[in-house]
Amino acid sequence: MRVMLKISYDGTNYVGWQRQKNGVSVQEVIENSIEKLTGQKTSLTASGRTDSGVHALGQVAHFDTDSNVPAERFYLALNTILPDDIKITASSEVDKSFHSRYGAKRKTYEYSYYLSEVKIPVLERFATRESDLDMEKMREAAALLVGEHDFKCFLSTGSTVKTTVRTIYDLTVTKTDDVVKIRVSGNGFLYNMVRIIAGTLTAYSSGKFTLENIKTALLTGDRNLVGKTAPAKGLCLLNVEYA
Amino acid sequence: MRVMLKISYDGTNYVGWQRQKNGVSVQEVIENSIEKLTGQKTSLTASGRTDSGVHALGQVAHFDTDSNVPAERFYLALNTILPDDIKITASSEVDKSFHSRYGAKRKTYEYSYYLSEVKIPVLERFATRESDLDMEKMREAAALLVGEHDFKCFLSTGSTVKTTVRTIYDLTVTKTDDVVKIRVSGNGFLYNMVRIIAGTLTAYSSGKFTLENIKTALLTGDRNLVGKTAPAKGLCLLNVEYA
Repeated sequence: MRVMLKISYDGTNYVGWQRQKNGVSVQEVIENSIEKLTGQKTSLTASGRTDSGVHALGQVAHFDTDSNVPAERFYLALNTILPDDIKITASSEVDKSFHSRYGAKRKTYEYSYYLSEVKIPVLERFATRESDLDMEKMREAAALLVGEHDFKCFLSTGSTVKTTVRTIYDLTVTKTDDVVKIRVSGNGFLYNMVRIIAGTLTAYSSGKFTLENIKTALLTGDRNLVGKTAPAKGLCLLNVEYA
Repeated sequence: MRVMLKISYDGTNYVGWQRQKNGVSVQEVIENSIEKLTGQKTSLTASGRTDSGVHALGQVAHFDTDSNVPAERFYLALNTILPDDIKITASSEVDKSFHSRYGAKRKTYEYSYYLSEVKIPVLERFATRESDLDMEKMREAAALLVGEHDFKCFLSTGSTVKTTVRTIYDLTVTKTDDVVKIRVSGNGFLYNMVRIIAGTLTAYSSGKFTLENIKTALLTGDRNLVGKTAPAKGLCLLNVEYA
């Protein structure tokens, strides 16, 4: 049977989702737990990789198994084996045609900043510090990005991909106390796209360039006309939808 | 001179604010940093103790020193010595009559819950898990507690204190996604009072007792008529005001 897992992890201590030689990955830890539980080696496929230090509230992955553990019990059994910073929040049997990566219709990410002149320990783990951010300006820049666009300028240099056209359904910037959250939903995201969007909204907010820059960047695909890639720890994959 | 510090800490790895023999306290770490910086042993007085595992965004403490480090530079100098989970967010010289504990006029705490059937790593560190909470009921119970009351029933058994009368200025319950925050401001709080308030709002939310129970508890001071002390990790001291 094919089993789908919904997964949350605090990415602080991992090299990212994907198995790597230079450190412990989330994928490896969960695959090892499944092997421990079922006695079978297995290969997990996620909706997409997350980079080193990126967090997830609702990552989705699937694997095939002939274990007789009922699919909807997998999450409880795996959670007894998994470490505190990786937990399965739901598990279910899915059709063999289900694919966590190719079947994903909509993904939502959140990038968090906090406003302070100095580091604040209770906020540092899941957010990036900024001195100040202008909500109105960030929303102005955000509005330019909603819809179908060629997001080539928001792709990390050196990456290759078939098409850089994506659709952003929704991109909101909210502020509660001194925490600013950028929430973005789309049909898919290029490598580092959300982190570059975050870096672009903050760079525009601090007057580093104009709205014209961003418009030109979208038209020309010039990575140099948009902001830096914001740090990994501020990013969290909130959820992945399939219908 | 007397120096006031504003302090934020992630309380996860500490035995609480106050120096203790059985583990590392926040007070001890900061006092040691001040000694390292100034060469003088010093004694820090905080606005109040926080328990093991409780966090702070804006704890306030003061100490006396004849160091020639300018007061408003202390926070930067100390932050280079302090660990990542304790940082000073501001420092300034205050009058010798200033006392971080006796002078506190208003304190604000926040207690955080998240709603889930299973542990969620990105939320576990600063919030307590609950299956479900009824916002309307929590607000109903919260409304009973605003104002000046004898909060004896919200004092941990075995504690002694001159008077158990306190004033709660404001007590709000808000929900964003699956995170519920109880924010309470008052002229002072008894030992474990905020955690017992949190435990009481959730117990009432889940139908464990009636509003009449809480009213009777306030009148009689009976600790058994209100909820359990909620876990430490969900609590954060947001700020302390002096004017």
